[in-house]
Amino acid sequence: MKELWSRHCRELVPYTPGEQPKDGHFIKLNTNENPYPPSPLAVKAIREALGDGALRLYPDPSCTVLRQAIAQELGVDPEQVFVGNGSDEVLSLAFSAFFEPDRPIRFADVTYSFYPVFADFYGIPYEEIPLDESFALPRAPFMEPCGGVVLANPNAPTGKEMDFCDLRAIVESCPDRVVLVDEAYIDFGARSAVELIGRYPNLLVVQTLSKGRSLAGLRVGFAVGNENLIAALNTVKDSFNSYPVDRLAQAGALGAIQDVEYFRCTVNKIMNTRSYAANELEHMGFYVCDSAANFLFVSHEKVSAKKLLDGLRERGILVRWWDKPRISNYLRITVGTEEDMKKLCATLRELIALHS
Amino acid sequence: MKELWSRHCRELVPYTPGEQPKDGHFIKLNTNENPYPPSPLAVKAIREALGDGALRLYPDPSCTVLRQAIAQELGVDPEQVFVGNGSDEVLSLAFSAFFEPDRPIRFADVTYSFYPVFADFYGIPYEEIPLDESFALPRAPFMEPCGGVVLANPNAPTGKEMDFCDLRAIVESCPDRVVLVDEAYIDFGARSAVELIGRYPNLLVVQTLSKGRSLAGLRVGFAVGNENLIAALNTVKDSFNSYPVDRLAQAGALGAIQDVEYFRCTVNKIMNTRSYAANELEHMGFYVCDSAANFLFVSHEKVSAKKLLDGLRERGILVRWWDKPRISNYLRITVGTEEDMKKLCATLRELIALHS
Repeated sequence: MKELWSRHCRELVPYTPGEQPKDGHFIKLNTNENPYPPSPLAVKAIREALGDGALRLYPDPSCTVLRQAIAQELGVDPEQVFVGNGSDEVLSLAFSAFFEPDRPIRFADVTYSFYPVFADFYGIPYEEIPLDESFALPRAPFMEPCGGVVLANPNAPTGKEMDFCDLRAIVESCPDRVVLVDEAYIDFGARSAVELIGRYPNLLVVQTLSKGRSLAGLRVGFAVGNENLIAALNTVKDSFNSYPVDRLAQAGALGAIQDVEYFRCTVNKIMNTRSYAANELEHMGFYVCDSAANFLFVSHEKVSAKKLLDGLRERGILVRWWDKPRISNYLRITVGTEEDMKKLCATLRELIALHS
Repeated sequence: MKELWSRHCRELVPYTPGEQPKDGHFIKLNTNENPYPPSPLAVKAIREALGDGALRLYPDPSCTVLRQAIAQELGVDPEQVFVGNGSDEVLSLAFSAFFEPDRPIRFADVTYSFYPVFADFYGIPYEEIPLDESFALPRAPFMEPCGGVVLANPNAPTGKEMDFCDLRAIVESCPDRVVLVDEAYIDFGARSAVELIGRYPNLLVVQTLSKGRSLAGLRVGFAVGNENLIAALNTVKDSFNSYPVDRLAQAGALGAIQDVEYFRCTVNKIMNTRSYAANELEHMGFYVCDSAANFLFVSHEKVSAKKLLDGLRERGILVRWWDKPRISNYLRITVGTEEDMKKLCATLRELIALHS
């Protein structure tokens, strides 16, 4: 039943996003959304952008004002910033801009599961490098020559932060290939590689407004890197879709970036709740991977992850689980509000008592 | 200065979108935007979607409610509808889903200039079939076997509507290859091919909310076709970017689709203004291509298009011109409000008097 599909399309195994339930009766800890609403400045900026019938006009295809604001916040030049329709789109365009169909790229065996999908979409071969037993990244294999490197830092779904010296050593080791650092979860305490972009022309850092800025519903992500890399991203963007970021998304993102105080405050609340929840879970017999992200990757000593997943769902709590080698006994739990996490812990206690 | 770019990326010649001036002092007749604001229901729906901090949550990746509304409006099933981030993205994904790197596709020599860019992006070879002297599409070359066909109807930048029997004959001639009908400008009087999708499993029709629905700034386009073609589009979408249409875009598009009365009313005004402007221009000595779109493609008997372009710009009016074979003595002029068109005509009269 795939007649008329291109051969390429027939072979694709698409990414499966986490469930977005249509009713609102769940405590949703399955897609790493921020439990707090976006900044009031973001909402106000969107309301203003709605006025005057301005939506009849195309958006600025190069997001000039938003790029200036991001550049100012990060201390870089606007020419070092590229904005796209969510960081997934930015990553996707980067795969096309920097990787070749005849030179395998490398990423971890346990990492964001969209990387192999992007690679297959563009026909780029890849090697999955095993993380060690504790899910730490071995630096040596990433310092060897290859077609490119993709690192999630902090990693997903583990939440583990990379050693900063390792990261720098990897970028420095082979200046002839691009290192893509996916910092989707950088806002929750880890050290960003943005400070290195002036020094390493082969480093591209990708961030998103979906997590720390509570704007998953608005689809804005960006890349920061040398002007030369940004020019390549613009070239592929304008060969795929010229206006990927709509007027309201540009306005809302600008408001969110400018409201630094609100951002710091919500992010700090999440980091405090993360510590609280990690501590509770450890006391219940969970192994909790050390997390620098807005989620916890956990495994119980007695009760299987699948059992806990199903039990939580029956009780109105969604978390994420993958039926994959190495991680099938782990759950990834988004850090919600303190109240969400209290309910989660109480429910897990109940399930553990039931099953052990 | 393209070190680190993939070989593929180095060879790309990106699409150039029309100018989006940052100040608002121009009468903007250069990018085929609708001169009327979007439906108040669209704006209201966006305001409502902003409430409750809902932007913190990912959008529905499959645009379920919006697809239902589009399907109802067009009299098809929701499974026959695919929604993307503007019709450019939908077209781009369709090139990947249906065309092959070893079977040339065909489109007109004078048509939307993004088609060869999409083809190059995916490494799909193509043949440009010359339109006749009056910019009409010859049907025979499109009825021969080939890797696929892309037709803009009405065509851009000419505005010319295809003969409907020709279109059907082309679709019917080779059921083993996809015919992509780009109906970006269908709302202004031409006959849509949507009625044929139940009959021809190889027909995909692409439309947008940017023109007739005044939502160029929101980025929503869609495809209508057999379930099998829609499934292919979903496969490529989920291999490129899972959540391309943000929450506000889904909400605003829904409001716009539901406000049929407002849509009919603004579209009718534009069609009336088109007739008025075409008549005026003909009286000034312009050849005016018969248009079923919201723009006019015109060439003056005495004054060159480039001179008129520059003169209009100096006088605060933007129109579009291409330095390309066959059409370098033509201007494409968007149909604005009646007032816009009166100013345009007065300015053109002045320029013609000056230069002839």
